Amino acid sequence: MDQLTSSNHAIGILDSGVGGLTVVKEVFRQLPQETVVYFGDTRRCPYGPRSTEEVRQFTLEIVHFLMRFPLKALVIACNTATAAALELIREQVDIPVLGVIEPGARAAIKASKNGRIGVIGTQGTIQSAAYEKTLKRIHPDLYVVSHACPALVPLVESGVGPTEQAYRIVETSLAPMKGQDVDSLILGCTHYPLIADLIGKVMGEQVTLISSAEETARELSVVLNHKRLLAESKQPAGQFTHQFFTSGEPEGFRRIAERWLGMPIKVEQAELEPVVTTGVPGV
Amino acid sequence: MDQLTSSNHAIGILDSGVGGLTVVKEVFRQLPQETVVYFGDTRRCPYGPRSTEEVRQFTLEIVHFLMRFPLKALVIACNTATAAALELIREQVDIPVLGVIEPGARAAIKASKNGRIGVIGTQGTIQSAAYEKTLKRIHPDLYVVSHACPALVPLVESGVGPTEQAYRIVETSLAPMKGQDVDSLILGCTHYPLIADLIGKVMGEQVTLISSAEETARELSVVLNHKRLLAESKQPAGQFTHQFFTSGEPEGFRRIAERWLGMPIKVEQAELEPVVTTGVPGV
Repeated sequence: MDQLTSSNHAIGILDSGVGGLTVVKEVFRQLPQETVVYFGDTRRCPYGPRSTEEVRQFTLEIVHFLMRFPLKALVIACNTATAAALELIREQVDIPVLGVIEPGARAAIKASKNGRIGVIGTQGTIQSAAYEKTLKRIHPDLYVVSHACPALVPLVESGVGPTEQAYRIVETSLAPMKGQDVDSLILGCTHYPLIADLIGKVMGEQVTLISSAEETARELSVVLNHKRLLAESKQPAGQFTHQFFTSGEPEGFRRIAERWLGMPIKVEQAELEPVVTTGVPGV
Repeated sequence: MDQLTSSNHAIGILDSGVGGLTVVKEVFRQLPQETVVYFGDTRRCPYGPRSTEEVRQFTLEIVHFLMRFPLKALVIACNTATAAALELIREQVDIPVLGVIEPGARAAIKASKNGRIGVIGTQGTIQSAAYEKTLKRIHPDLYVVSHACPALVPLVESGVGPTEQAYRIVETSLAPMKGQDVDSLILGCTHYPLIADLIGKVMGEQVTLISSAEETARELSVVLNHKRLLAESKQPAGQFTHQFFTSGEPEGFRRIAERWLGMPIKVEQAELEPVVTTGVPGV
């Protein structure tokens, strides 16, 4: 067995549920030669209201599961898990680990002309102040205004279209962002890109919306390139198989995933095992 | 003397002349805590019409000069030099080396929704097909249309404003791009961002313009972050000193650089020494 990381290895992507599929979709679009192994912890979703310690433990368990596959990189495609566990996971595994917060922060710094950046996310993400810390670590003089929008994930999950009522929910959620003169708004939750049209309509076209999903796939491309780990060609048919695992009910996951990704996939249910911190393979 | 790379070290940036200052400006904007050492080979500018071998040799000489400073990363902020020498320089030094072609290609892949990407550049850059190769290495199914625009660098250097005549020159230069249904256009020359308004007017607002300068600074941020080499704070006044060197006449360089960067700088003239391939320090 080859223990060395190779460009033929897969990219592990994890999320509390189906939100991370927005990252998968962007990886398929921007890096069509790469293979993905995905784990969605649907059974224990959402992570937002859980304690940092619990989110860390859950993330470790998923990483432990994913590291059984030959991986060349890991993506924590969940804002809450990134805020809680990114540094811990980076210490635990010897492949590059990307979260969704740094790519969003960097893209906002690039996009902003006036240095005034807005961040919206779940209560957990906003309370962690992870975006604000990341933004200010790179660029201390930025003005950052953060706001939790607890009504938006339920809105997305309800599957409602761009109705008048949906517009009003988004408008109310974003009211504290208006009048702050931000020129870039980070969609700090992997659900939000799905209602980007509504958010854009409320904020106005002078505000650039930053989607973590797009930016994380872009950053993954940079990191793989500089490690010389970009897939050089598509795997021969049969060997090129994306794999999707969920801790919850696989049939519901499959339906949502196929609709978002626009392709048929196979989903397996998988049990996670309790892990102690030092138990992650690949150290 | 500390031989290890440290986050306090500077970023080396090189160009055939003043064009790479568009990258410097973006590094100052996106990474305001970083220190830059710049070399512009104004005396031997332009590199565009020179042979690959000659451009390689010149680039090696500049890298040899810059590696005397304690550097944590190198940026080849010139499309022609990137196309000719990026891989060579990556083999020669043990710090991360970024060119301007990969960042532009990756940003175009992210931006394009229809998979049809345009590239404009100097004759040397377009003839090398470096953008097309980089784009297709990552994403083989893209449609890429490349076109050399030899009239645009002289237009920028003439310092003319957005006049009717300038518009017509840009319109004529970009004529082969129109009707190709590209939705993203890579400005494959560090001069072009300075006439981005005119280019955008000719191409129409449905086409996203990709500036290598912005994207290279963004990618530098990713690479430094993943190597844990981002500057953690601004150097104390006095120690935080950007340095600019030119092989040509320093006074003219200083005037242009101060106008572009919007800040006073000190420029020194420097002689380059002939280098044999194995002579680069830091190997």
